[in-house]
Amino acid sequence: MARTLKIFSGSSNPELARLTAEHLGIPLSRSYVASFPNGETRVRIEENVRGLDVFLVQSVCAPVDKNLVQLLIMMDAVRRASADRITAVIPYFGYARQEKKTAGREPISAKLVANLLAVAGADRILPMTRPGPAIEGFFDIPVDHLRAAGLLGERVKDLALDNAVVGSPDAGGVARAEDFSRRLGGSDLFVVFKRRDTPDNVTPLHMVGDVKGRVAIIIDDIISTGKSLITAADSLLEGGAKEVHACAVHADFTEDVVKVLESSRLKSILVTDTIPIPNQRPLDSKIHVCSTARIFAETIDRIHRHESVSALFS
Amino acid sequence: MARTLKIFSGSSNPELARLTAEHLGIPLSRSYVASFPNGETRVRIEENVRGLDVFLVQSVCAPVDKNLVQLLIMMDAVRRASADRITAVIPYFGYARQEKKTAGREPISAKLVANLLAVAGADRILPMTRPGPAIEGFFDIPVDHLRAAGLLGERVKDLALDNAVVGSPDAGGVARAEDFSRRLGGSDLFVVFKRRDTPDNVTPLHMVGDVKGRVAIIIDDIISTGKSLITAADSLLEGGAKEVHACAVHADFTEDVVKVLESSRLKSILVTDTIPIPNQRPLDSKIHVCSTARIFAETIDRIHRHESVSALFS
Amino acid sequence: MARTLKIFSGSSNPELARLTAEHLGIPLSRSYVASFPNGETRVRIEENVRGLDVFLVQSVCAPVDKNLVQLLIMMDAVRRASADRITAVIPYFGYARQEKKTAGREPISAKLVANLLAVAGADRILPMTRPGPAIEGFFDIPVDHLRAAGLLGERVKDLALDNAVVGSPDAGGVARAEDFSRRLGGSDLFVVFKRRDTPDNVTPLHMVGDVKGRVAIIIDDIISTGKSLITAADSLLEGGAKEVHACAVHADFTEDVVKVLESSRLKSILVTDTIPIPNQRPLDSKIHVCSTARIFAETIDRIHRHESVSALFS
Amino acid sequence: MARTLKIFSGSSNPELARLTAEHLGIPLSRSYVASFPNGETRVRIEENVRGLDVFLVQSVCAPVDKNLVQLLIMMDAVRRASADRITAVIPYFGYARQEKKTAGREPISAKLVANLLAVAGADRILPMTRPGPAIEGFFDIPVDHLRAAGLLGERVKDLALDNAVVGSPDAGGVARAEDFSRRLGGSDLFVVFKRRDTPDNVTPLHMVGDVKGRVAIIIDDIISTGKSLITAADSLLEGGAKEVHACAVHADFTEDVVKVLESSRLKSILVTDTIPIPNQRPLDSKIHVCSTARIFAETIDRIHRHESVSALFS
Amino acid sequence: MARTLKIFSGSSNPELARLTAEHLGIPLSRSYVASFPNGETRVRIEENVRGLDVFLVQSVCAPVDKNLVQLLIMMDAVRRASADRITAVIPYFGYARQEKKTAGREPISAKLVANLLAVAGADRILPMTRPGPAIEGFFDIPVDHLRAAGLLGERVKDLALDNAVVGSPDAGGVARAEDFSRRLGGSDLFVVFKRRDTPDNVTPLHMVGDVKGRVAIIIDDIISTGKSLITAADSLLEGGAKEVHACAVHADFTEDVVKVLESSRLKSILVTDTIPIPNQRPLDSKIHVCSTARIFAETIDRIHRHESVSALFS
Amino acid sequence: MARTLKIFSGSSNPELARLTAEHLGIPLSRSYVASFPNGETRVRIEENVRGLDVFLVQSVCAPVDKNLVQLLIMMDAVRRASADRITAVIPYFGYARQEKKTAGREPISAKLVANLLAVAGADRILPMTRPGPAIEGFFDIPVDHLRAAGLLGERVKDLALDNAVVGSPDAGGVARAEDFSRRLGGSDLFVVFKRRDTPDNVTPLHMVGDVKGRVAIIIDDIISTGKSLITAADSLLEGGAKEVHACAVHADFTEDVVKVLESSRLKSILVTDTIPIPNQRPLDSKIHVCSTARIFAETIDRIHRHESVSALFS
Repeated sequence: MARTLKIFSGSSNPELARLTAEHLGIPLSRSYVASFPNGETRVRIEENVRGLDVFLVQSVCAPVDKNLVQLLIMMDAVRRASADRITAVIPYFGYARQEKKTAGREPISAKLVANLLAVAGADRILPMTRPGPAIEGFFDIPVDHLRAAGLLGERVKDLALDNAVVGSPDAGGVARAEDFSRRLGGSDLFVVFKRRDTPDNVTPLHMVGDVKGRVAIIIDDIISTGKSLITAADSLLEGGAKEVHACAVHADFTEDVVKVLESSRLKSILVTDTIPIPNQRPLDSKIHVCSTARIFAETIDRIHRHESVSALFS
Repeated sequence: MARTLKIFSGSSNPELARLTAEHLGIPLSRSYVASFPNGETRVRIEENVRGLDVFLVQSVCAPVDKNLVQLLIMMDAVRRASADRITAVIPYFGYARQEKKTAGREPISAKLVANLLAVAGADRILPMTRPGPAIEGFFDIPVDHLRAAGLLGERVKDLALDNAVVGSPDAGGVARAEDFSRRLGGSDLFVVFKRRDTPDNVTPLHMVGDVKGRVAIIIDDIISTGKSLITAADSLLEGGAKEVHACAVHADFTEDVVKVLESSRLKSILVTDTIPIPNQRPLDSKIHVCSTARIFAETIDRIHRHESVSALFS
Repeated sequence: MARTLKIFSGSSNPELARLTAEHLGIPLSRSYVASFPNGETRVRIEENVRGLDVFLVQSVCAPVDKNLVQLLIMMDAVRRASADRITAVIPYFGYARQEKKTAGREPISAKLVANLLAVAGADRILPMTRPGPAIEGFFDIPVDHLRAAGLLGERVKDLALDNAVVGSPDAGGVARAEDFSRRLGGSDLFVVFKRRDTPDNVTPLHMVGDVKGRVAIIIDDIISTGKSLITAADSLLEGGAKEVHACAVHADFTEDVVKVLESSRLKSILVTDTIPIPNQRPLDSKIHVCSTARIFAETIDRIHRHESVSALFS
Repeated sequence: MARTLKIFSGSSNPELARLTAEHLGIPLSRSYVASFPNGETRVRIEENVRGLDVFLVQSVCAPVDKNLVQLLIMMDAVRRASADRITAVIPYFGYARQEKKTAGREPISAKLVANLLAVAGADRILPMTRPGPAIEGFFDIPVDHLRAAGLLGERVKDLALDNAVVGSPDAGGVARAEDFSRRLGGSDLFVVFKRRDTPDNVTPLHMVGDVKGRVAIIIDDIISTGKSLITAADSLLEGGAKEVHACAVHADFTEDVVKVLESSRLKSILVTDTIPIPNQRPLDSKIHVCSTARIFAETIDRIHRHESVSALFS
Repeated sequence: MARTLKIFSGSSNPELARLTAEHLGIPLSRSYVASFPNGETRVRIEENVRGLDVFLVQSVCAPVDKNLVQLLIMMDAVRRASADRITAVIPYFGYARQEKKTAGREPISAKLVANLLAVAGADRILPMTRPGPAIEGFFDIPVDHLRAAGLLGERVKDLALDNAVVGSPDAGGVARAEDFSRRLGGSDLFVVFKRRDTPDNVTPLHMVGDVKGRVAIIIDDIISTGKSLITAADSLLEGGAKEVHACAVHADFTEDVVKVLESSRLKSILVTDTIPIPNQRPLDSKIHVCSTARIFAETIDRIHRHESVSALFS
Repeated sequence: MARTLKIFSGSSNPELARLTAEHLGIPLSRSYVASFPNGETRVRIEENVRGLDVFLVQSVCAPVDKNLVQLLIMMDAVRRASADRITAVIPYFGYARQEKKTAGREPISAKLVANLLAVAGADRILPMTRPGPAIEGFFDIPVDHLRAAGLLGERVKDLALDNAVVGSPDAGGVARAEDFSRRLGGSDLFVVFKRRDTPDNVTPLHMVGDVKGRVAIIIDDIISTGKSLITAADSLLEGGAKEVHACAVHADFTEDVVKVLESSRLKSILVTDTIPIPNQRPLDSKIHVCSTARIFAETIDRIHRHESVSALFS
């Protein structure tokens, strides 16, 4: 434990890395991360890491393959430079949703990514993910899952929404909504069912649960195109909800989603900073971002000092 | 493909193995599987397997550790005897529910079992499991998941239950119920939410969905103690359901469950034969068992002849 | 070495684990080890183990598969909880006798078990085994073999048996008897040869060595059914031995063996506590148990403090 | 060998894949390769591949990380779909130049890529590379290197350039130029030495060899920015060369290179189609492309039929 | 099985390889195996092996390291040349006796050699070894042990030695002698015990068993310096034996052993050709060599045709 | 870092190991390294190494296989004795030149050796090699390459050779010569091209570069038979060079090379002590040896204390 702790940042979310280091009271360590003219990633670690406890912060968000390979290459450099232990801190674990086959002859890309991280030299993974089975079990190395549910739950509680009802925009997220409901003291639940014809086109089927005259909060994991969120909001408003809010961990926004959300019937959208959000939001933006930096900092600190991490999330 | 196909059975579900071989039109191959006086499993493969395509049928049901280790030892023997390819046919994949940590410092036993199977020499896994993420991605070797949903759906359709409503006895099974609803042509859905204080004691919270005056079918994956099923049935009857049926893939019955189910308010319980069911059922038993042998036989045949397996389940 | 040492016990030999910890002057660490209603093992490590030097004590004795899988699952939990180093302390290494094929198409279960332990996360193995070739070489991780020969030799010396002759109840154990003879200062040797038709039925062939009028001590590794021991004792008494004693490391007793031994013509039977012995022995029992706890404690202490272990056994 | 051969193409060089299949007299097999809205690669193999001999054609050229990850994901899908053997056909092996550290704490990205390919399921690699040590030895799986030197040598010979002198634009390529000289019947050699201050900025030092009044042919492996090529050509013309041609295997062109080359003092530039070249070239373009499809087709055919590949290149 | 079978020979025992191929009715395949001027082994496989079933015959006898590395390098070449399956046929498995530690901080060289063979690409091992536990279990790949006991037993039976008594020159070989005794129809047994002070200097302790006036046959595994054999013969003659013969599998003769044996009091010495024996024996040599080529040929043939090998040795 | 550092020497270059330890101010640790009568290597580590940072010094020079296997066996012993970290210090990495295939069906012996070192337990490799791509990338464990170029460059500078011209005796070494030229302040360059008909017979083709009236220094990596060096010197003298010197890292001398070099037209030959040089040199020998011990000592010290190694060579 006498080993020094060093944090390096990839290029995908430098602001979160910076904030995390700030919370830890140490500077980000220096590395040169760029591209050769032909687009190949080029890395040089600019500080000695021999025998140290190294944390690499990189969100595997868009451009997802570039950010993934950059992380792998940084790990290769750090491993060959004789770091004692390498922890890949992955605020957003891209490809996590491709965790099973939905039809024959598909990849399980999330498992592939797990294997790539392991073969490139990760000794430990520190992702922020939903409480599902897949990712942690895809690894044989230790994984310390961080949860944003507590953080988001506190924020929602602060809104003092009486008579709120929480729910899931699809069948797969019901357990997450149920968990969230417990954090709010046991609020009622709703589920929006939909038929998923293709992975992109979703058609609402019907909504179960009583939302009439109440404030509905849609709980989700990732907002990407925002389509399913907006469809669910419409269902809820048609079902008589007074107003609809959304709350999700990852803002994996495709182009124009900020504009789409701002002009939607949603009253507010709460997300975290695991993925940087474009800055062109209006002053009175509906999108509220709460930072996960303190959670990452506390977890890294505990890992480094060999203290219990689960104690943080109990 | 000129390789001969041979099927061996462990001691956990010989009847299903026998039926599967019968469907394939071949005899079960001979092996000696017993215990030494001190309880250690003892195996001898009694037919030449050099260069052959070997399938080992073993449900990892109770006594779960004995059946698991027996399967591992059989694979070791077959591998050392130079089989060309070993497929572990696992109608019931024990430990599958321990697929994630629910608290700090827990194992992920399902991943451990996956690793044990791989290190013991499995070239391919053929389990019958629910369409969740974990198991398939826990392996790097090919996994051909079999689904019983089609089989069970046909049986339920045959009952010609008008006005049925299907649902899940807990939040985690909603996606499965939604899938089942589509197989029945889009019937309505319900969900029974519960607070899960400890893994054993479950307390119902509330039920959402409209079941009044309708036939409710609870869709589940595994029936073990039957507690959550019976609690859910009570909720549904209190909610006005006309009658309640249950439908699950695996009958992982603990002692006395047969008696408990027979005397419950459930109208009928439909399960498969992935786990042998004790024969002491009454003549007019509520428990109906449909065999998965034909599905296993067809899948094994396609795997052996290098034909598409996903075509079977589309 | 600043790392703290923690010892956890599986459920197979808690008394030996407790005694070992006592010798080390530390408490056994807390873990929850139980079974789910369907028989699956369930584990939770109840103390932080991050960065620690963890020793898991578990005899792989009957019920052998349950105890083996429990050990594997405990290791999985400890590894995922980020222990620095995991040592599997295995007082009795079940399946050790299945270390080679005796016929075609048999498993080598001892090697399989070695592979299972390695894949589940063991960094080091600490078994008590006979000085044979197999087990240590089955591993690529360090193995610190403990020997009980010194302990047992001291006890036998204490009996001050003049004119003793030591020997093996079968051809495979002659080297062990020769080693024991040297510990007693070079006593004479005998060997009982037998024809081994099947692993269970043994037929004595003939005995070589001069035992007339002397005290014969049969040296063995494991007592299981006791059959070969009693047959050998009969041969020795027929050959003129004055009295016959037995001395073995592991008491892997099958049911009723205690009664069989108590009523045999053997004068005394000396074993260790690597396997717990049923307590229904008479007050004047012929079976004497000497504890290995001090040996385990000293070895664990030396491993933890990076001191030579071989020095203990030279 | 009764196994059918199937060829799939990634999205990086479909034309070369198509031509290769055409030479083999078989159609390209169907796969769906696209991106999810958030940029994650999405793959579905649309033909049964069980037990087949599958070749995946993908140049790891710009966008290099996207093309690399796409290849890995395709392999994952094909492996899980139970292909008998997977050969990654990699006409251009991106990151190959990052095959050693040039300073401390750098990655060896080429080895990392080799490991990624192996872990994703490649059974065999079929790259077109220069005759250097690294790539082949980075793998433990078989690698069949294809060489374009014979193809390019034939083309240059066809030009019937009397009195030609061939050489290398840098010290590292001298062995390649010497090899090429032998293919032309032993023509004279030159070398342009340069000081390499940074990987991007090259400063010519001096040129050795007699080029006065002769046709100079610069032999290179990859043309990327074209800078070193144009600097070398200037040196040669200053040294009295009558005219200067360039010949390289891979056209890993960065933006605008086509324009730069067309307007340079080089008389002609000969490359292959391992990387697709933008089509905006003028009718009388100086850039001549010769296809490697026949070489790939012949090699794939020999690999599939278990015939000697080295015989092709001797 | 349509795959062709090819046999290559290393340089350690070309005569046995030649005879084996002759028995199989095929020619030895061509390879170039030599040394560079600096002593490094240099190999080129001179026939196509793609997709073939390749057997490499190499005894790991003196010079043991050179022969071992040569075998590893040949396997590397054959693997990279895309053989379908590589079987290392190892008539004499050097380092096999270093199968366990005899003191602290020793290697287990036999396990190391097993790992080296596996990492170099062996798919299967075909050694001729004694029926001990270690070697087979050191591998996870299939091992087909050949036994010479049947062959040697036949030869001894042919001598029609009435009243023979067989035995072991040390405690470790008693099981082997017992097995041999059964092959001769249950002849009596003797054991020569010795104190083994250092691995080289052996001091006889005492002999048990009745040899007076009888023909004694010493059964051993390897004859190396011959010291223990000659000492045992002396003990037997002193004990009244009429004449003493020796029978061993491997003639791992150190220098001058031939001369020492010829001039000893042993009446005859029977060995096999797993290691080539120097040809300077007298016409009436006491050393008789029986060839194992037919056993190797039959086993290779069965392995290649996927027939049972254990049937050969039952 | 509190771990103690221990250095052990194999038998290939004890003088360099001794000097290295001397520079570090510690004694060489004791180990017993010898041969059994049958030639098998026999090792016992004679000091406790539990938890220590162990460095094994062994040049893999002639007898190359014996020295290689000895190193592997020493590592096995040290690993099983629970060393914390094992660094293989390999002043001369034999087989390094077999780093690629030069024809079909050849091994890549250098990669094989890398795999053998890794499987035997090396945690880190410390070779002295030329700045080529292969060796470092053949490993996934950290490799700290030492370079002798700086050491040799200083020695050559000390000679104050005005008007020197440096160059390579073959095409493959041009980059090394260019690097050396920069170390001398940018001296001019020459290249001797040759046709390499077989690995042993080299025929000079022609020399490029201006050497007339100047002192020529041939830069090479390894001197083995010395043939190519002497041929190159002849070419240079014919080309008008005033005198010719040679400078190489490794003196991998075959028999008689010392005599051949002493009687050659070379003015001096500068090498290092990575391989011991026979002592029969004359008093006024042309062969000058400079020791690398200080470089090895400084590097080992930095590795042990977790300081930057690249800083040493910048």
